[in-house]
Order: sequence, then structure tokens, then C-alpha cells
Amino acid sequence: MELISRNLVNIAAIKAAVEGAEKLTAAQLEFAKDRILMGTERKTMFISEESKKLTAYHESGHAIVAFNTEGAHPIHKATIMPRGSALGMVTQLPSSDETSISKKQLLARLDVCMGGRVAEELIFGQDHVTTGASSDLHTATELAQYMVSNCGMSDAIGPMHINERPSSELQSRVDAEVMKLLREAYDRVKALLKKHEKALHVLANALLEYETLSAEEMKRILHPYREGRQPEQQEVVQEEGELVLA
Amino acid sequence: MELISRNLVNIAAIKAAVEGAEKLTAAQLEFAKDRILMGTERKTMFISEESKKLTAYHESGHAIVAFNTEGAHPIHKATIMPRGSALGMVTQLPSSDETSISKKQLLARLDVCMGGRVAEELIFGQDHVTTGASSDLHTATELAQYMVSNCGMSDAIGPMHINERPSSELQSRVDAEVMKLLREAYDRVKALLKKHEKALHVLANALLEYETLSAEEMKRILHPYREGRQPEQQEVVQEEGELVLA
Amino acid sequence: MELISRNLVNIAAIKAAVEGAEKLTAAQLEFAKDRILMGTERKTMFISEESKKLTAYHESGHAIVAFNTEGAHPIHKATIMPRGSALGMVTQLPSSDETSISKKQLLARLDVCMGGRVAEELIFGQDHVTTGASSDLHTATELAQYMVSNCGMSDAIGPMHINERPSSELQSRVDAEVMKLLREAYDRVKALLKKHEKALHVLANALLEYETLSAEEMKRILHPYREGRQPEQQEVVQEEGELVLA
Amino acid sequence: MELISRNLVNIAAIKAAVEGAEKLTAAQLEFAKDRILMGTERKTMFISEESKKLTAYHESGHAIVAFNTEGAHPIHKATIMPRGSALGMVTQLPSSDETSISKKQLLARLDVCMGGRVAEELIFGQDHVTTGASSDLHTATELAQYMVSNCGMSDAIGPMHINERPSSELQSRVDAEVMKLLREAYDRVKALLKKHEKALHVLANALLEYETLSAEEMKRILHPYREGRQPEQQEVVQEEGELVLA
Amino acid sequence: MELISRNLVNIAAIKAAVEGAEKLTAAQLEFAKDRILMGTERKTMFISEESKKLTAYHESGHAIVAFNTEGAHPIHKATIMPRGSALGMVTQLPSSDETSISKKQLLARLDVCMGGRVAEELIFGQDHVTTGASSDLHTATELAQYMVSNCGMSDAIGPMHINERPSSELQSRVDAEVMKLLREAYDRVKALLKKHEKALHVLANALLEYETLSAEEMKRILHPYREGRQPEQQEVVQEEGELVLA
Amino acid sequence: MELISRNLVNIAAIKAAVEGAEKLTAAQLEFAKDRILMGTERKTMFISEESKKLTAYHESGHAIVAFNTEGAHPIHKATIMPRGSALGMVTQLPSSDETSISKKQLLARLDVCMGGRVAEELIFGQDHVTTGASSDLHTATELAQYMVSNCGMSDAIGPMHINERPSSELQSRVDAEVMKLLREAYDRVKALLKKHEKALHVLANALLEYETLSAEEMKRILHPYREGRQPEQQEVVQEEGELVLA
Repeated sequence: MELISRNLVNIAAIKAAVEGAEKLTAAQLEFAKDRILMGTERKTMFISEESKKLTAYHESGHAIVAFNTEGAHPIHKATIMPRGSALGMVTQLPSSDETSISKKQLLARLDVCMGGRVAEELIFGQDHVTTGASSDLHTATELAQYMVSNCGMSDAIGPMHINERPSSELQSRVDAEVMKLLREAYDRVKALLKKHEKALHVLANALLEYETLSAEEMKRILHPYREGRQPEQQEVVQEEGELVLA
Repeated sequence: MELISRNLVNIAAIKAAVEGAEKLTAAQLEFAKDRILMGTERKTMFISEESKKLTAYHESGHAIVAFNTEGAHPIHKATIMPRGSALGMVTQLPSSDETSISKKQLLARLDVCMGGRVAEELIFGQDHVTTGASSDLHTATELAQYMVSNCGMSDAIGPMHINERPSSELQSRVDAEVMKLLREAYDRVKALLKKHEKALHVLANALLEYETLSAEEMKRILHPYREGRQPEQQEVVQEEGELVLA
Repeated sequence: MELISRNLVNIAAIKAAVEGAEKLTAAQLEFAKDRILMGTERKTMFISEESKKLTAYHESGHAIVAFNTEGAHPIHKATIMPRGSALGMVTQLPSSDETSISKKQLLARLDVCMGGRVAEELIFGQDHVTTGASSDLHTATELAQYMVSNCGMSDAIGPMHINERPSSELQSRVDAEVMKLLREAYDRVKALLKKHEKALHVLANALLEYETLSAEEMKRILHPYREGRQPEQQEVVQEEGELVLA
Repeated sequence: MELISRNLVNIAAIKAAVEGAEKLTAAQLEFAKDRILMGTERKTMFISEESKKLTAYHESGHAIVAFNTEGAHPIHKATIMPRGSALGMVTQLPSSDETSISKKQLLARLDVCMGGRVAEELIFGQDHVTTGASSDLHTATELAQYMVSNCGMSDAIGPMHINERPSSELQSRVDAEVMKLLREAYDRVKALLKKHEKALHVLANALLEYETLSAEEMKRILHPYREGRQPEQQEVVQEEGELVLA
Repeated sequence: MELISRNLVNIAAIKAAVEGAEKLTAAQLEFAKDRILMGTERKTMFISEESKKLTAYHESGHAIVAFNTEGAHPIHKATIMPRGSALGMVTQLPSSDETSISKKQLLARLDVCMGGRVAEELIFGQDHVTTGASSDLHTATELAQYMVSNCGMSDAIGPMHINERPSSELQSRVDAEVMKLLREAYDRVKALLKKHEKALHVLANALLEYETLSAEEMKRILHPYREGRQPEQQEVVQEEGELVLA
Repeated sequence: MELISRNLVNIAAIKAAVEGAEKLTAAQLEFAKDRILMGTERKTMFISEESKKLTAYHESGHAIVAFNTEGAHPIHKATIMPRGSALGMVTQLPSSDETSISKKQLLARLDVCMGGRVAEELIFGQDHVTTGASSDLHTATELAQYMVSNCGMSDAIGPMHINERPSSELQSRVDAEVMKLLREAYDRVKALLKKHEKALHVLANALLEYETLSAEEMKRILHPYREGRQPEQQEVVQEEGELVLA
């Protein structure tokens, strides 16, 4: 952790030197944090307009689910600027106390994962969904397996820890429960994004115009399209450590 | 064993030196024992009120099951002070003669393991159960597997030792028996904690107020809520060696 | 990449030296690129007339599917000159942005893979299909497995990532979905090539006469047999990097 | 073998030296043999009265089955003095010719193994059976597997040698046969011990009083409770090599 | 390849030296080729008349299937002189272009493999078939697996590449298809050899009399028993490289 | 082979030296051959009368099946003198030409293997069969697996080579065929030995009296009990190399 912090300062210092600045600014530290978390920006990479549009809706899908699901991590920012192998990403802030996570919070994480793919399908149709969601599906599947196999959070399996070599029958039941959790999350998210389709268009267009948006900017943009009270955890925003969703 | 004892004395001596004490006190030795068994206290860790409350009920669940189940190990103390990666814990005293354990005692251990999760579900509802029970479930599953596979304690399998590579059919039957033992324990504990729900609230609130309670303190607190005679083994309290339940 | 480029120039330079040329020509660079991508030409290898004819139809099958399927990579050239262990090949140009591929594009790749074998069957009958399609089938199977197991592109599996050791039941369902995707591609391509059978004969005969044809030459040859508008992506032809289909 | 004999003499000689004896006595050799076969006596270990009682019935169970089953190895002695990790044990004399063992003798071994657990269940009830029988069950399961898989002693499998990787169907049949042999042994022994319940009480009480009993002493104790002729093999008692049953 | 050629000349030269010849003859080169391909002749090995007769029919079975199946490799010679561990063999000439093989040619190879065993069964009865066909069955099974798993040549599996770890269900289907291909080949060959039974007797008797027969000699012998036109590929005889069938 | 011969002569020479003989006799060479093939005689080993009797019938069972089954290897001698870990053995002469073995000969080998166990069961009853037959069952199972998996000698599997990792369904069918071959052999042998029960008693008693019997001696003993003509292969007796059956 300390190593990372020192690295952060080094990168920020180099940035400041390049820019001829006399002392480190918040912008230079933000630049350094993004560089460490998300890789180098690929400003020269050619992205087709069609691909940009798809990415904008994908990232907006993640963001809108996170804004509208109780128990989800608060969002920090969203971008369609490609970094590393990702065409865009949404970063979330981890909660302060991660030692014990509730079932509700885990379900919210599944939903946020599904947001990108569901937005693709909703806007472009099933034939145009992309391979871009594969890492989201990987993350969601691992979460669901943890819930079923380690945390006793599935009725069909119950309060049991599944070890590495269960019988094929038990493994089938675990697989079926995991699949069920994932399909339910997908369906929940489909209903949620259909309901917030206008907000989805507005946010995707904003990303296409501005490339990167902070949580505050997104909230301002989405304000007219809010329904009811925002979930509480959105208010608690911490500055240390971020989660990244491609 | 000797190594541990010497380590214990060293830690206690350092504590005494820090405190400027002239000789080792029982309190310094207790401090050293906790340090070895449970890791360093994390007084600076930020824990939300909601998380503390959940932990208090989780640990109280373990404790109340242990106090009310014949054959369970006697409790030594309970705490919601985080140590290592655990947000709280209940420590139990091992019985004097561990070479041969009865089925009844093993079932009591299953029940004590289930106490934490069942308390979470009972008080906060199924959506709010947490990942905090995962190590309890791991322990309970291993106990149940030992009963079924090694000790001939299941009717469906009978007096047979299951080796590492049984047929998939036999493995399925073992898994089904293990699942059955675990569900039965869960249901027994649910009934027990429903019956002692008042005691559960009282003990959880006491933990929230005092953070750590000894067996004696817990017994005094729970005295008005006792029904009938306390199981015998509670009387036999030994000072050497403790079991820890997160 | 740089290494390859340097290697390319070296081979072209040697070719130029052999030919006594004073500077590198486009033809010498094309020669070098083919040498790297496809192996050494085997001009002395004896190929029976029957085998040549089968190869001509096989490669024409790939080409006609690629010309007539939306989402397929644009074709660069086709040849029945044996190189390495292949009796002929079709080279395609990769699309500019490969980080995110749509389901439609993946299905088009499956179809292009199937084109060779389907043409064999259509023209020579089922008894005369050859082992020459085995690498096409390998590629198509891996694509279909990626779609089903990693990309959530199959209804029967849904938005789930299949890890390396699924239950045998889930593995069966994955295998069934992969088989379904492959059979559907095969059937689609059979219908397409039946519809374009005249074009298939014309292109195969042109390959038998000229051995190697560029995309432009093929388009001119097939012009009278086109039906409707050519898919858009055919227009975008890039010069850097090629895909090879044996 | 020679090594063991020399070791035996060494231990006996040390014992004699400690006792200031001028030459080795039979008692010193017996002491040395027990030390090698069964580990060091644990005279200082604290054993609860309840546990001692359970052990006395467990060992008496083994002994009474061995006395009353044709084909069983003759008993040498029984003890409830803990040695190593065992709380008690029965030692048997191996038969002179071990190269070829009959099915009847193998079934008798299964029965003797089951004697301990069955006695626990009969006297204390199913909830009070202990983990102490786990090594007996392990031994019995291995014997039954040997009979079924290597010796053609099961009708359902027949005259076939089962190798390490049979089909899962065949493995299931083997497992079912092994389970059947073990259950039948358990049931036979339950009937036998019910019939000899008085003898069981007498022998267990004698062990509680004297801790260790020789075969001769047990026979004298059980004499009034014998029914009919003792099985022949009991007469043949050899002095060399012993089997141990915990 | 060059190494083999040089080795060939060396062996031929030694043979010539032994025979006191001044220069290498075709016969000495033929001798050297046989030595490399088939091992040393075992003239001193004692073979019973019954075994010789069985071998003669086995090799004649291979030969007659090869002569009468379109797509089979042309035969070079047949022998019942034991070499290495084989009691006899038929050598075939590989086709000129092996990079792409048709389903028809693969089926012909299966049939030629089956010829030996089918002749044994037809002439001597099922009880007298021998272990001598085991390597033929191994070759045939591998060919059939290649057709089904790699070449999409089975309707039940279709245009799919089967990787090393398919689901057990898919593996069962592959096994069933392989078994079907092998049984069909066996049945086809049984019908063919029944029809050519006279030729089979004639050829086997010729082998018993002359031990080794060239393709030309076999054709002359079988001429009166031919029905219709010999398949075309028999005419194309090449001198380089041979296949051996034991 | 040469090494063995030299070893044979050495052992015989030592024997001769011990006996003070001036040159090697046939008896000394026979002694040396037995020593190499069967281990050292264990004259001092104590064998109970009951065990000796069982061994005599076991070995007689092997011998009588070998004498009365067409295709079996000719017998060389039988003994109930323990050697190595075996209590007795029958030695057979290998046939001259082992490169190709007929199904009939393989079935005869299965039958000879079963002879020992079947004789035990027939004379002493099922409860008294011994572990002594385990290596016979191992040999018989491996023979049957070779017939089914490698030699196409089972109708249910047909002309197919089973590789190491078949589908579980195919493996089940192979196991079922192997079991069927073994049970059929067992039943055939039971019928045969019932028919020759008098001869079995006579031969077993002769072995109990003389310990070792040559083929000639056995034939003389069994002469009055022969029915019909002895199978041919019994006449062909070779002096080089022997097979051993425990």
C-alpha cells in the first residue's frame, strides 16, 4: 500500500515536471491514480463511431444500475477513453468496511456487472452484443459461486461449504444455483434499464460528447430523470481506493 | 506446547515492561494469550454502527447456542473487538479428554457453528445475512463430513469408512447426508434462538455496550432469561487452551 | 511486430538482390509478406487434377461466403498454389478495431470457416469431402466455444462464464450449444452456396486457370453473378495485417 | 524381524537394569513387547469416568465377538490403559499360516472390528457412540474392499479383479457390495452382543476394576456366561507376534 | 529421408559384398528396403503349419480387400515370411498427394485393415480368430476417431472438432460413432470376402507355396477370379515409399 | 536368455558341489530351474493339515482343467511344496509359437486360471474359499480385458481398440463384457470339475501323499478316470521355458 502511494507520488511528480509546475496539484495526482489503476490512455487508437457509441451505452448501463441499486458501491467516474485493452470503464469506490458483506450488497454487485451487457442488448439488439462483456460475466460468475459455495446464500444448497471436489450431482446443483442467480440479476437489470431508458440515452450521449464524467457531473446530468430518493450510500464518497469496471 | 508457553510469558513480560509493572499479573498473561490466539486488536479500524450491531448479534448467537446445548464446549468469553480479519469472536474451552468424542458432542459443535448465521437471519432478515459466516460454515461442513465419512454416524452410509475416491453415486450419498446434518443443525438452532430471542437481544446489547464479556458476566446477564437447569458441562471450566469462533 | 517488419524487409531485399533490382518494389514486399504468412510456395509438389479441382472449390467456398455475409472480414486474395502443408488458401483483412467483436461478426466468422467444407460436399458429394477442412472445423469450434462459455452469447447457458471444471451436466449443455451453433452455421452456408452455385463454379474455374486471384479480380469475375448490394465492409480494405484460411 | 527381536531384548534389558534385576524375566520381555506394539503407557493422562466406562464396553465388545466367532484370531489380552492415542485396546494372536485366508476368517475379522462400536451403541445409545471407532471402521472397510475387489468373494461382482480405474458403474457396484458386507457384519454382531449382554457387562466391569486382563483371566471371568462349546481356534495360542485393535 | 536412402545403399552394398557381386543390383536394393521397412527375416523361427495357414489367409484377406476397394492404396507385395514380431505382412504404396484425403479413401483404409481378421473368421470360425489382428484394430480405431473427431465426417457429431476433454455425453456419442464406422467396415468386408472366397483360397494357397508374392504375381494369380474392371488406382504404381500391414 | 542359462548352470554346479558329485546331472539342472522359476523351497514353513488339503485341491483343480481343455498349455508338474509366497503351484509349458494366439486358447487360459478357486468352492463350500486365488483372478481379468479391449473378441464391443480413456458408457460396456467372460469361464469350469470330481479327489490325495507330481505321473494316476481321448496338445511336450500357476 505504501509502495503504491510512493509510486503515485512519483508519477504525479513526473507529470508536474513535464508540465513545468512548481508543486503537485490534485489534477496531477488524479492523473497518476488513473495511470496506476487503469493503464495508459490510448489517445491514438482508432475507434469507429459505432464502437464508441456501443461503449458509451455499455458504461452508462453500469453507471445507471449503480446509481439506482441499494447496496451498490458509489460511482467515482465513467469514461469511454480506451485504456489498456478496455474501450471504456466505470470506477467505483469501495465501502469502508469490507470484512463482512451482506447478501444484498453482493446482489447489487451482480447487477452492476450485468448493466453493461444489458444496455448493449436493449439499445442495439441481441445480434449486436459484443465480447466486451466477457470480463463482467467472469466477475459476476465468481461472485455468484462465492455466494452459493462459501456463504450459504442459496436455498437449494443451504448452510454448507462446497469443497473443491463435490460429487457431480452436487456440482450440478451448485452450477444450477449460480446460473439462476445470474439470470435473475440479468432480468432485474433489464427491467431497471427499460424503466430508465431515457436516462441511459442522456448519459451515453454525454459520454460521447465529454468522454469522461465524474460522479458529480453524472448526477447533475441525470437529475431531471431521477425518480424518488437516491439510495443513501451514494452520499458517502471516499477518496481512497477505487474499483474498476470495464 | 512449551514453545507457546514461553512465547506467552515473553509477550506478557513485554506488556508488563511497557506498563512499568514489577511482576507479571494475570491480566498481562490474559493479554498475551489473546494476542497469540486471536491476533492483534484493531482498535483503529473503522467499523460502521450497522456492522457492529450485526457482529454483536452474530457472536451472541454462537454464545446462546453454546450455553443452551448439552455437549457443547463451555464458553470462555465473547467480544466484538475486531482482531485479525475477524470482526468479533467467541472463545470456548476444549474438554479435558479429546481422544474420543461422542455423536452428541459433535452435533452440539455443529449447532454452535450455526448460531452466528442463524442470529443474523433471525434479527436482520435473509437479505442481510453476511459473508462473515463463511468460516463457520466451512468448519461445520468439515465436522459433518468427518461424522459421515469416518465415524459411521449416518444411517444412510452406515459403518463404513469412505476413502478419497468413492464412486460418484456413493459420493452423492455422502454429500446428501452431510447436507442433511447441516440443515438439521440449522433448523434446530433456528428453533432454539427463536425461543431465546429475548436473551439474544440482551446479550447483543451488552456486547455493544461493553465490547468484551467473560463467561461469568454473560451468565449473570442471561440469568433472568434462563429457563430450567443449565447443562452440566458449563460448570467445568478449565484454564488451559481455548477454541475460537469468529 | 517490429521484428516481423524488419524480417519482411530483409526477405524483400534478398528477393530484390536475386532479381538484380536496384530498389525494393511493391511486388517484392508482397512476395515477402506471403512467404512469412503462408510458408514457401511448393511449385514442384505434384498435385493431381482431381485434388486441384477440389481445392479450387474449397477456397471459392470460403471466398463466396465472405463476399456475401455481413460482418465478415474483407477478403484480400485467394490461391490454389500449395504453401506449407496447405493446398490453397484465402486471406482476409482484419478489422481495424478488434477489442470488441459483435455476435454478428462472430457468426460471420463461423460461416466463412464452414464455406470450404460445404463447397466440397455440394459439388463432389458427401463421400468426397476431405480431411482438408479439419483446421477450419477446429477454428470454428473454438469460436463457438468462446461465444457460449465466455461471452454469454447462448440462450441455453445465459450470462455466465463457464470455468475449466464445470459439472458434467453443464459441460453437456455447453457442448450441445456449441454443436448447435456449428450446425446452424453449416446449414446457413449450405443454403447460401446453393443460391450462389453459379458464382462458385465461375470462381473455382478462374482459380484453376489463374491459380491466384486478388479481391479486385474476384469481384470483377463475380460481378455478373452478384445479387443486390455488396455488404459495406467489403469497401474498407486495409493494407496492414492479414488473416489466412486454409 | 531380527531387528525387532534385538530391539525387544534391548528394551527388556534396560527395564531389568532399572529394576536392578540380574537376568531378564518373562515380565520384562512382556513389558518390552507391549512398548513396541502399543506405545508408551500414559498413566498420567486424565480420563473421565464416563470415558473409561465407554472404553471398557468398547474393548469388551471386541473381545466377546472374538471369543464367540469361529475363525477369529485368538485373543491375547485386553486393556483400558491408554497407550499412544488409543484409550484402550484388545490384542489378538495372528494365525500360524497367513498366506491363505478363508472367507470365513475374513468375515470373522469384520465382526471383531464391529464389536467395539456395536457395544457402544447397545449400552449407551446411538447419540453416545464415539469417534473412537473410526480406525476400526477403516480397517473393516479395507478388508471388505479386499474381499470384493481382489478375492472374488462377492456374488454381485464374481470372480473378477477390480483394477484402480473401473467404470463408475462398476465402482458403484463394488461400493454397494462393500457397504452390504459391512452392514451384515454390524447386524450379526448386534445380534451376538445382545445375546451375550450379561457377559459384556461382566467383562466391562472387570476391565474397569483391573484395567488389563489376559486371555486366561477373561476366559475365567466369562466361564459362567458361556453357552456351549468355545470355538476351536481359541485353544491354539501362539507366543510370537500380536495384532492390536484399538 | 536422405539418411534412410544412404542407409539403404549401405545395406545393399554389404549384401553385394557378401554375395561377391561387383555392383549393386535391383535385387540387393529390394533386400535392403525390406530390411529397413519390415525388420530382419526370421527364417529359423519355427511356425506350425496351422499358424502358417492362418497367416496366409489373414494376409490374403488384406490383399483381396485392397484389390477390390475403390480408393484403397495400391498393393506392392504380400508375404508370410515372419519379420520382427509379425508372422506376415502386406505392403501398400502410398498415394502421391497425401495432404488431403477423401472420406471414401479413409473408408477404404478401414476396410483393408479389417480384411485380415474377417478372413480369419470366415475360413476358421469365430473361435479361431487370433490376437494377430490387434494392431490392425488399433489402426482402424484411430482412423475412425480421426474421421469423427477432427474431420466432421460423422452425421451424429457434425462439423465440430472434438477437443481432449469433451463432456461424458459427447464422448459417448463419439465412441458410438467410431464403433458404428468400425462395425460397418467389418460388415462390408465380410460381404466382399464371401463374394471373393474362391480368390481368397487361391491367394492363400499361393502364399503357402511361394511365401512372398509381388503385386504383379498376385494379379496374374487372381486374374481368372476377377469380376469386372479392376479399380483405377491399381494401375498407378509408384516406386517410392511403402505402407506395411501386418 | 543366455544370462538365465548361465545362472541355471551356476546353481546346478553349486548343487553338484554340495552333493560331492563329479558332473552335473539332470536332477541338479531340474533343481536349478525350479529355484529360478519358483523361488526357494520353504521346507521349514509350518502348514496346517487343513491348509495343505485346500492347496492340494486348488492345484489339482488347475491341473484337471488343463488336462481336459482343448487349447490349454500342456502341464509340466504340480506341487504343494510352498515356494516364495505360494503354498503350491502348477507349471505349464508355453506353446512354441506365441506370436499369435487364438480366442480358443485364450478361453482355455481363463479356464485353467479358474480351476483352483472352483475346486476350493466345490470341495470345501463357499465360506471356505481363500485369498489364495487372488493372483489367479488378477491374471484372468487381465486376459479377459485384453480379449475385449485389444483383440475384438467380444460381440458387444466388436472390432474396436479401446484406448485408455473411453467414455464412461463404453468403459461400462467393456467392464460388463469382461465380467461376462469371467463368469462364463467360472461356470464352464464348475461343470467340468463336477464331472471330473473323482479325478479331483484322486489327484489331490496323490499330491498330499507325494507333494510333487510330474505330468507323466499325473497322467498315470488319472488314467483310469479319463473319459475319451486326451486333447492333442498334451502330447507335444517341450523342454524349454515354463509357465507357473500358483
